[in-house]
Amino acid sequence: MTITMAKGLLEAFLEIRRTSERLCKPLTTEDYVIQALPDVSPTKWHLAHTSWFFETFLLRPHSQGYALMNDAYPYLFNSYYNSVGLPFPRAERGHLSRPTVAEVYAYRAHVDEAMARLLEQLDDALVPSVELGLNHEQQHQELILTDLKYNLGANPLRPAYRPPRARTEHPRSPGPSFIAFDGGLVDVGFDGPGFAFDNEQPRHRAYLRPFRLASRPVTNGEYTQFIADDGYRRWDLWLSEGWRILQERGWQAPLYWERRDEGWWHYTLAGLYPLDEQAPVAHLSYYEADAYARWRGARLPTEQEWEHAAAACPTLGTLLDDGVYEPRPAVGARDGLLQVLGDVWEWTQSSYSPYPGYRPLPGGLGEYNGKFMVNQMVLRGGSCVTPRSHVRVTYRNFFPPEARLQFSGVRLAADI
Amino acid sequence: MTITMAKGLLEAFLEIRRTSERLCKPLTTEDYVIQALPDVSPTKWHLAHTSWFFETFLLRPHSQGYALMNDAYPYLFNSYYNSVGLPFPRAERGHLSRPTVAEVYAYRAHVDEAMARLLEQLDDALVPSVELGLNHEQQHQELILTDLKYNLGANPLRPAYRPPRARTEHPRSPGPSFIAFDGGLVDVGFDGPGFAFDNEQPRHRAYLRPFRLASRPVTNGEYTQFIADDGYRRWDLWLSEGWRILQERGWQAPLYWERRDEGWWHYTLAGLYPLDEQAPVAHLSYYEADAYARWRGARLPTEQEWEHAAAACPTLGTLLDDGVYEPRPAVGARDGLLQVLGDVWEWTQSSYSPYPGYRPLPGGLGEYNGKFMVNQMVLRGGSCVTPRSHVRVTYRNFFPPEARLQFSGVRLAADI
Amino acid sequence: MTITMAKGLLEAFLEIRRTSERLCKPLTTEDYVIQALPDVSPTKWHLAHTSWFFETFLLRPHSQGYALMNDAYPYLFNSYYNSVGLPFPRAERGHLSRPTVAEVYAYRAHVDEAMARLLEQLDDALVPSVELGLNHEQQHQELILTDLKYNLGANPLRPAYRPPRARTEHPRSPGPSFIAFDGGLVDVGFDGPGFAFDNEQPRHRAYLRPFRLASRPVTNGEYTQFIADDGYRRWDLWLSEGWRILQERGWQAPLYWERRDEGWWHYTLAGLYPLDEQAPVAHLSYYEADAYARWRGARLPTEQEWEHAAAACPTLGTLLDDGVYEPRPAVGARDGLLQVLGDVWEWTQSSYSPYPGYRPLPGGLGEYNGKFMVNQMVLRGGSCVTPRSHVRVTYRNFFPPEARLQFSGVRLAADI
Amino acid sequence: MTITMAKGLLEAFLEIRRTSERLCKPLTTEDYVIQALPDVSPTKWHLAHTSWFFETFLLRPHSQGYALMNDAYPYLFNSYYNSVGLPFPRAERGHLSRPTVAEVYAYRAHVDEAMARLLEQLDDALVPSVELGLNHEQQHQELILTDLKYNLGANPLRPAYRPPRARTEHPRSPGPSFIAFDGGLVDVGFDGPGFAFDNEQPRHRAYLRPFRLASRPVTNGEYTQFIADDGYRRWDLWLSEGWRILQERGWQAPLYWERRDEGWWHYTLAGLYPLDEQAPVAHLSYYEADAYARWRGARLPTEQEWEHAAAACPTLGTLLDDGVYEPRPAVGARDGLLQVLGDVWEWTQSSYSPYPGYRPLPGGLGEYNGKFMVNQMVLRGGSCVTPRSHVRVTYRNFFPPEARLQFSGVRLAADI
Repeated sequence: MTITMAKGLLEAFLEIRRTSERLCKPLTTEDYVIQALPDVSPTKWHLAHTSWFFETFLLRPHSQGYALMNDAYPYLFNSYYNSVGLPFPRAERGHLSRPTVAEVYAYRAHVDEAMARLLEQLDDALVPSVELGLNHEQQHQELILTDLKYNLGANPLRPAYRPPRARTEHPRSPGPSFIAFDGGLVDVGFDGPGFAFDNEQPRHRAYLRPFRLASRPVTNGEYTQFIADDGYRRWDLWLSEGWRILQERGWQAPLYWERRDEGWWHYTLAGLYPLDEQAPVAHLSYYEADAYARWRGARLPTEQEWEHAAAACPTLGTLLDDGVYEPRPAVGARDGLLQVLGDVWEWTQSSYSPYPGYRPLPGGLGEYNGKFMVNQMVLRGGSCVTPRSHVRVTYRNFFPPEARLQFSGVRLAADI
Repeated sequence: MTITMAKGLLEAFLEIRRTSERLCKPLTTEDYVIQALPDVSPTKWHLAHTSWFFETFLLRPHSQGYALMNDAYPYLFNSYYNSVGLPFPRAERGHLSRPTVAEVYAYRAHVDEAMARLLEQLDDALVPSVELGLNHEQQHQELILTDLKYNLGANPLRPAYRPPRARTEHPRSPGPSFIAFDGGLVDVGFDGPGFAFDNEQPRHRAYLRPFRLASRPVTNGEYTQFIADDGYRRWDLWLSEGWRILQERGWQAPLYWERRDEGWWHYTLAGLYPLDEQAPVAHLSYYEADAYARWRGARLPTEQEWEHAAAACPTLGTLLDDGVYEPRPAVGARDGLLQVLGDVWEWTQSSYSPYPGYRPLPGGLGEYNGKFMVNQMVLRGGSCVTPRSHVRVTYRNFFPPEARLQFSGVRLAADI
Repeated sequence: MTITMAKGLLEAFLEIRRTSERLCKPLTTEDYVIQALPDVSPTKWHLAHTSWFFETFLLRPHSQGYALMNDAYPYLFNSYYNSVGLPFPRAERGHLSRPTVAEVYAYRAHVDEAMARLLEQLDDALVPSVELGLNHEQQHQELILTDLKYNLGANPLRPAYRPPRARTEHPRSPGPSFIAFDGGLVDVGFDGPGFAFDNEQPRHRAYLRPFRLASRPVTNGEYTQFIADDGYRRWDLWLSEGWRILQERGWQAPLYWERRDEGWWHYTLAGLYPLDEQAPVAHLSYYEADAYARWRGARLPTEQEWEHAAAACPTLGTLLDDGVYEPRPAVGARDGLLQVLGDVWEWTQSSYSPYPGYRPLPGGLGEYNGKFMVNQMVLRGGSCVTPRSHVRVTYRNFFPPEARLQFSGVRLAADI
Repeated sequence: MTITMAKGLLEAFLEIRRTSERLCKPLTTEDYVIQALPDVSPTKWHLAHTSWFFETFLLRPHSQGYALMNDAYPYLFNSYYNSVGLPFPRAERGHLSRPTVAEVYAYRAHVDEAMARLLEQLDDALVPSVELGLNHEQQHQELILTDLKYNLGANPLRPAYRPPRARTEHPRSPGPSFIAFDGGLVDVGFDGPGFAFDNEQPRHRAYLRPFRLASRPVTNGEYTQFIADDGYRRWDLWLSEGWRILQERGWQAPLYWERRDEGWWHYTLAGLYPLDEQAPVAHLSYYEADAYARWRGARLPTEQEWEHAAAACPTLGTLLDDGVYEPRPAVGARDGLLQVLGDVWEWTQSSYSPYPGYRPLPGGLGEYNGKFMVNQMVLRGGSCVTPRSHVRVTYRNFFPPEARLQFSGVRLAADI
């Protein structure tokens, strides 16, 4: 259930806005500023940009008398909306010391106050834009954490975002099994009620052959066997483009993994730890997910297969609300689908394309999703840093096939 | 009908090999050598590589006593087959003056002679590999011409490959109309008899919504209206990645177009000519095809829609055998599909993915198609430089969305 | 007179270390962190690196029982000393949020305390290394300000480092005149007493033809005439490499200049201001200085000419100690050399080469200067952000010819 | 003695033009076309460009009724003369199959015929431009061979330009000795009679400290000891920029060297051969020459030292006219300077700067030398592919410090 169905819109707004700020509590001022890669953004940019979204698409057009806090912010905090003007260059977001962190919080308060006034007597026609703004901010909550993971993890000091984990007993993940599905003519895509992005619509029919889907994502332990079997040195397991990128970037393991004498460790938001063999492997590119599947004699599911299976069994795994920020071992029986929503985003073999009959949102918000529908692959299911009220089985996440910054893993599929 | 069904295998072999050489007749020695872009290859490389293919996959494993003409050729003329060893770098093919053109022709004769012996008493199990080699060479016949077009067209002297065209009366293309198709459960993919690539198989079921397809490809004249309406200056018509590339490369028109005072001209294999407004527009990237469709309020077809419609009406347009090497205006009634096979490859909105149940060929030939199934879009239909015996409605061509070197155009589709 | 001659070594040490910190007083925490260009460094890196220098070359080898504050600092704060180990990549200094600013100040205190103990009973043999460390820190004081100017100036908000200037009457700079020098056999280079870098030594003989040298650097007003005369559009005024870089980077004026309707403005450490026409032009590359001289029918001086003339008349201009951080109009009579030391570094036509008989320092400190003696040009004289106790007529500054980050200007020379 | 002093101008013209063509005799048509690196040019470009030089600076301005052979040639064959118009991009010279080799020879004949007419009644004022054109063509004779060496040597077939060498007994090079020179006030630079480039002038005075200069260049055998002593792995031997480039490009030996089990081989214009230990080492960058000198406890000479010493003893070594195209072991007594002119260009530690009082040529020819006077180092002496009538002790060759394409070696110097 989406958050705005469960609560009033104002309450939902305040809670989501507070959540973003709460996620930043453990940070030093310096942590807010940096951008260790063009593909990640500084935390203070996320905090400002999500405010800019409400300012741009709700306050400026619909809140009479709304005054900008600073004339340069519309330029500085635009991400990619050409309809709003040329954006400040993405790769230079970490070059800005000003506005300071305190000024960004003041900007958030400025926007929140104006939004609270607007929401008190909101025209119904604006509800979808508010809901979009809230879902947008939830997407950036995930990005705040994944970008922080990179920004901190790239520092040789390997600073931690959250306190050390208690090293309790690890549950053992149930051995993987394959669940069979009949296929045939099925319906996929969102059909309400509640909120969904334009790219999940319209609901439509698809024909599926019978298929099997793994009961849970691949674990770190299983993935180490792929590495041990020279998975990163055998070209025959890889797509041509993946093999090229592997060589160019020197990939030898998932992002954040470090080989030590005693075995594999990985950087987590709690610092550097030995790999938990039972937990789902994360930070894989599409190329790695695809190569692993080929090595196993399996394949990645299509997004239609995934959604059809998930709809029957939308079990929850670890989500942002759990406050763990790492995938955890699957718990449960091996004869159903586990960890469908949460833990790791699951690469599908489907490229990100418009659904039949797809229509982008009208106006500037039409730039939200549709213009990215090329050279990206669909991921499904949500991760350990996705808010619980944000996931659903029709949700289509998408990234270029070389992307590894997210908690992205793999659930195997196979033909019958 | 494929060529090997119409003729004996040896006859087909000899004819296809001769055709490749016949296409090179108009060239100077110097023309064979150059590579004006990493993405194109020197003509002499094409002539050698197609021979290498037969040598590598037929003669060396199956022709007892076959002797290499030169120990370095397996390295120099490998394109991308890792199973055969590290290939010579693609971008440096034009850095090689040796082997000379005469030596390359001697190499072809060496291979032809050995192949003729092999074909005389060919094991049936090898027929598919021979057919693949012949279809491979036909693909390179097309590339010889499209690469030559770039290599000559990039020269400020704008030399012609073929003699000037007679400037006869141009037929007028029939006005475009949209043909309706019912959709529903349809079967697509190749199911014999004859030759097809692995990527066209297996034949399988798909569900289509009702759709409409244009009776013919978009013409140069229609495309100039898109340009005149600021099509290359309006970000809202473009995919985000397409807009970025347009700006980076300064695209203002299709490849080979030149603006002159009196209007648009374009470079053809016969030299520089005023645009034929009635002929199909060619040398579009996917981004341009997609932007044009959006501007027209239409869309690109999926490859399933295209194939379903084409199967009902596989009309022929201009092909390599016509010796024109340029798309020509459509001729015929406006109430059926025209120019389905030939004239221009037609971009579809489908990314190049494996069909359900797809299996690559076994062994080294498994690298032929499957490893490229990411970040590419499917084109259908063949072009004015595709051999007649090479086209079919199930054929899946594929290129990255920014590619413009081929005769690639656009046939519009729309929902009903 | 160098600072260590005027004061005791401990007193000098404390004063210089305090000065570095005093320069950072106006900064927000965020300002310390960023690196808007690979060629500039974050302020907190400068503060840490100068401490690392004392730690590495004095405390670790010579202070018994000295304990590192953090094992990673020797790696993080090494600039380019291979003898000490692989340095952290320069271009990523701005990717580090940790150590925080507070931790860097604690690191400075840690080093200062240990240095104070060491200096109390310092072996005479170590005095040169301490003096080098102090002069090294003074060099970084200049860099702190020039790097801050870039880091703040690249922000569209154009934040100021120091309070707005009082807009008092501007003195008029005396018209430029050329002073004649006889040349002949002269001696150049440092010969004590006091501190000098190895690259200023040994003092040696050179033969000069008679020459003339401008009484003061070129002013902003004079430079605007070069721009108005199409100086940035006439290839014949430029070195070939300069012309290439100008086109590649779109140079149309010195760094920090902005064209407005009412004329030229420039960003200063006090914010954005109309150009002071009487003040020396700064932030020129060698290519611009050279092109300007050619346009004027003059040339740049050699470093031998410059030093020979300056030695006779080492007048002081604006220096760091003045707290202005901008070049100011020349004051004084037009028949002597003005602003010899201070205001702007003056490009010479001399490439940075070893003096005859040059010997680098022994050990790790040998990497200080000698290994950079290629592809750089010598600048002389010091700037408005060079400490007064740091300048002298034999001082050789050096930068690649495209460098514009420093307060670098031009004093014309001519043959007689 | 320059060629135009020894012969009449017309005779000199014809001989030099014939020599260029004679050097191309061993080539296949294909060899003329390729450009395996942006820094080298196709042979046919050299043949055309040298003709373009006469056409542009003599025929078009001074030969009434001269008709261009092709309107595009002034654009295609301009190297870098902005005064003549925008040149065709250097890196794309190898992308042009037309004009063909035969057409280029026809172009040469066209120019030669017109030049012969012009030379028959030449205005005295034009003699210097003709001499410049001839010396220009001689420079390109050297480049034809060094560029061919790269273009052929980069081909895995390692084709030879000239027939295999007879493997006769190698003379042993005399052991190196250092010859002492007094220094003091000396005169350097060209002062006639005959031809010299503008950059060798004016003759002027310089002050030198006493120095020593090696009797001959460093040999291959001596250089292998540097490699064996980890010369390419010790950062302390290298300039900072050299060390960076070494790592970036993976340098482990001079250009064209290949390590085999049995020792070092190198590619020569006669093919691949074991290294001749007695011959001078060639194809060194400045960085390698400088590192080698440092390893030996010596240094590179300044160009003033070199010229002063060479003037006293301008012995000849191997030159183009010898038809060997490789440096040969020194022959002669060890107490004088050997191989001063010829065998290998010798890197000096002098950057390429204007001489005191330097004036570029007037008009378009002013672009010949002066505009390159930055970021390059001076080499002296000529090589085994420099024409005998082209070398002299005042000759200043210049290349960027990373250049290795020429026959560039090292003669050591030392202080006394």
